[in-house]
Amino acid sequence: MTQIGNIEFKGKSYTTLHINVSSNVATVSLDNAPVNALSGKMMKELQQLLKDLSEDSLIKVIVFDSKNADFFIAHVDINILNEKDILEELANEAAEGLNIFQNLGEVLRNQPQITIVKLKGIARGGGAEFVAAADMSFASLEKGKISQCEALMGIIPGGGATQYLSSKMPRGRVLEIILGSDLFDAETAERYGWINRAVKDSEIDKFVSRLAENIASLPEGVMHTLKAVLPPERFTSGFKTEDDGWAKLAFAAKAGDIMSLAMQNGAQTIDGELRIEELLRRLV
Amino acid sequence: MTQIGNIEFKGKSYTTLHINVSSNVATVSLDNAPVNALSGKMMKELQQLLKDLSEDSLIKVIVFDSKNADFFIAHVDINILNEKDILEELANEAAEGLNIFQNLGEVLRNQPQITIVKLKGIARGGGAEFVAAADMSFASLEKGKISQCEALMGIIPGGGATQYLSSKMPRGRVLEIILGSDLFDAETAERYGWINRAVKDSEIDKFVSRLAENIASLPEGVMHTLKAVLPPERFTSGFKTEDDGWAKLAFAAKAGDIMSLAMQNGAQTIDGELRIEELLRRLV
Amino acid sequence: MTQIGNIEFKGKSYTTLHINVSSNVATVSLDNAPVNALSGKMMKELQQLLKDLSEDSLIKVIVFDSKNADFFIAHVDINILNEKDILEELANEAAEGLNIFQNLGEVLRNQPQITIVKLKGIARGGGAEFVAAADMSFASLEKGKISQCEALMGIIPGGGATQYLSSKMPRGRVLEIILGSDLFDAETAERYGWINRAVKDSEIDKFVSRLAENIASLPEGVMHTLKAVLPPERFTSGFKTEDDGWAKLAFAAKAGDIMSLAMQNGAQTIDGELRIEELLRRLV
Repeated sequence: MTQIGNIEFKGKSYTTLHINVSSNVATVSLDNAPVNALSGKMMKELQQLLKDLSEDSLIKVIVFDSKNADFFIAHVDINILNEKDILEELANEAAEGLNIFQNLGEVLRNQPQITIVKLKGIARGGGAEFVAAADMSFASLEKGKISQCEALMGIIPGGGATQYLSSKMPRGRVLEIILGSDLFDAETAERYGWINRAVKDSEIDKFVSRLAENIASLPEGVMHTLKAVLPPERFTSGFKTEDDGWAKLAFAAKAGDIMSLAMQNGAQTIDGELRIEELLRRLV
Repeated sequence: MTQIGNIEFKGKSYTTLHINVSSNVATVSLDNAPVNALSGKMMKELQQLLKDLSEDSLIKVIVFDSKNADFFIAHVDINILNEKDILEELANEAAEGLNIFQNLGEVLRNQPQITIVKLKGIARGGGAEFVAAADMSFASLEKGKISQCEALMGIIPGGGATQYLSSKMPRGRVLEIILGSDLFDAETAERYGWINRAVKDSEIDKFVSRLAENIASLPEGVMHTLKAVLPPERFTSGFKTEDDGWAKLAFAAKAGDIMSLAMQNGAQTIDGELRIEELLRRLV
Repeated sequence: MTQIGNIEFKGKSYTTLHINVSSNVATVSLDNAPVNALSGKMMKELQQLLKDLSEDSLIKVIVFDSKNADFFIAHVDINILNEKDILEELANEAAEGLNIFQNLGEVLRNQPQITIVKLKGIARGGGAEFVAAADMSFASLEKGKISQCEALMGIIPGGGATQYLSSKMPRGRVLEIILGSDLFDAETAERYGWINRAVKDSEIDKFVSRLAENIASLPEGVMHTLKAVLPPERFTSGFKTEDDGWAKLAFAAKAGDIMSLAMQNGAQTIDGELRIEELLRRLV
């Protein structure tokens, strides 16, 4: 699965993403072994790629999947604070009023193409926020799982989840997802409105390819006109409130202690991440 | 099924509607062979009937069904531009800021009675918008199908669907419905919030009759008070944006070409309409 | 099940509530035989208890269940107007712009703790509004039932249901629930977004206990921060409109006649309340 060397695309070099373009559909496969943690580098590469794709009018649809059979995105890399230079670049690129995590979601939400997540493994935390920010999301009925488990790390989601989830489902379900911090199966996620739909694992590749190609084949102007008529909801004050709440907890000693303990106990290893909720609950 | 001659109701003559009143419930059966296309004439008759019913305080509930086993409403009649005189009348009757298709939906949404669609066949395009504009909708689990397939004709929905669907479900599902342009079965439509509920075909007649009669039998004042407390959401700016987007595409050459080709290839025949999505996709 | 004498909690005396505190979770069990009617006394005790719990920072989660196997809350006590002194106290305690029923829901919605309803029997009318006002609600798949059946009594819901339901589901489903006035099973209630989830009766105790304890065990600050970031929606004008509509009907002769007839025909007895919708429909 891992690549020898870097991927080149439109003159830029990528180490965490594979890009394939066919029939006006770009497929972006996330690849950051061992668990696809959302590192600063992956965030930067995603934003770079989305910017370059936004200028390519031949590409109508972007599908995101994963090279890792178990994980779509584990969550934000717990070691992200070590990537100082990249964090500074991300902060400089972030739109006014958004932290770097919210900014990634908003770049995705404002993409001129239709963006689709195909979720065949686990998406947690910042990875679940990426799923929620995409225009559409389809999960493998058997293997797709999703969780906002930040509460177990002593924080609340800080990359848009409080706002994105509130636009998709009643408040009681948002509270349950975030405070319950459980890993949801795809069927329950569909019933809650979290994803578009759960699709049998044996059919999801064909389902998403067909949908992406059908949208990419629509008569000129239809997709862009609809996106203009139905722009993503603006969450200006909600993002501010979310960031205030998140930052207060994220930079407190408690959260740092939990993250350190988590790393010592198996976080960001495949075994640890397959059941990170249990691992974190034992630490509290 | 077809009537010999016209139907008379409250001194007006109808050729596309059958009207039956019983126990304070009016049942309106759509009948415009071969596929129940929503012609200008049917639109005009629906608006006339809704106006006359709005002045009849004995009627509490209006149920809409179809005389056609396969189709509730195929979609707006592709030949509607030929009905010049009727279109002019519809335009004159339309409320400020609404195109004629949006106006039909808004007349329905502002009806003083409770309006219920019983969907036992296919509703597409303007027919699906009629379903979405009704106060409630119940579909046969086995036979009810619904689609906003306008995108395949080179346009976006222009009769309210962008606003109605957005008030019922998360944006990602609206984008999927409109850009995916697939025919949804009743069970999936229920899960998406598009309709109230899918009901077994063997039970739906009884289910809807019982509900309609129960509502019609409520103590005086209850239904009207609730409708006043829960008025339909206003979409003033959304309708404007939708109409702008729709008109730009609808009056471009591309859409006209697709409609002509579609008519040459079986649109508005029973066989063609049973699988119009496939038919249109082959034309692109 | 019934207590000999009163329950004491934090120096106050309760006759309709049992209170148990364990692991930072308070469990409040409703007990007002024979059918858990929501009397003025129960309303007053609930508000007193919620106030005292709001000042106890050790308690993080409040779970509401019932001592009555068949009923969570039957509905507002039909004889409530006889409790003149208590009604006056409730009116004095109500926040500006809220009637006493809306006020109870808003006290619950503004509780600093996470509030969870475990619904193993029937909740109707004001009881269903209590369920909808809680932060989360889980119902027994086999035994949980819920209904806004006020319409059958000649009124509309007046304790918040028009607003709470509208924030959880499309308008068409709200209209169906209130005007159809049917008793919903837990599975349909989940599909409509009325409750968080239906859980097998054999698993619901464990499910709710685990969730409550997990939330109560979260690192300090997480739960309160999230509640501050996601405050309950304000319904100021909606509550006014609801109360106007409700009061107009509730104080008319018709509603009083129905309530009297209902009492003569079995309302507020166990047998009558198990099928109160049928009983009321026969009276109309």
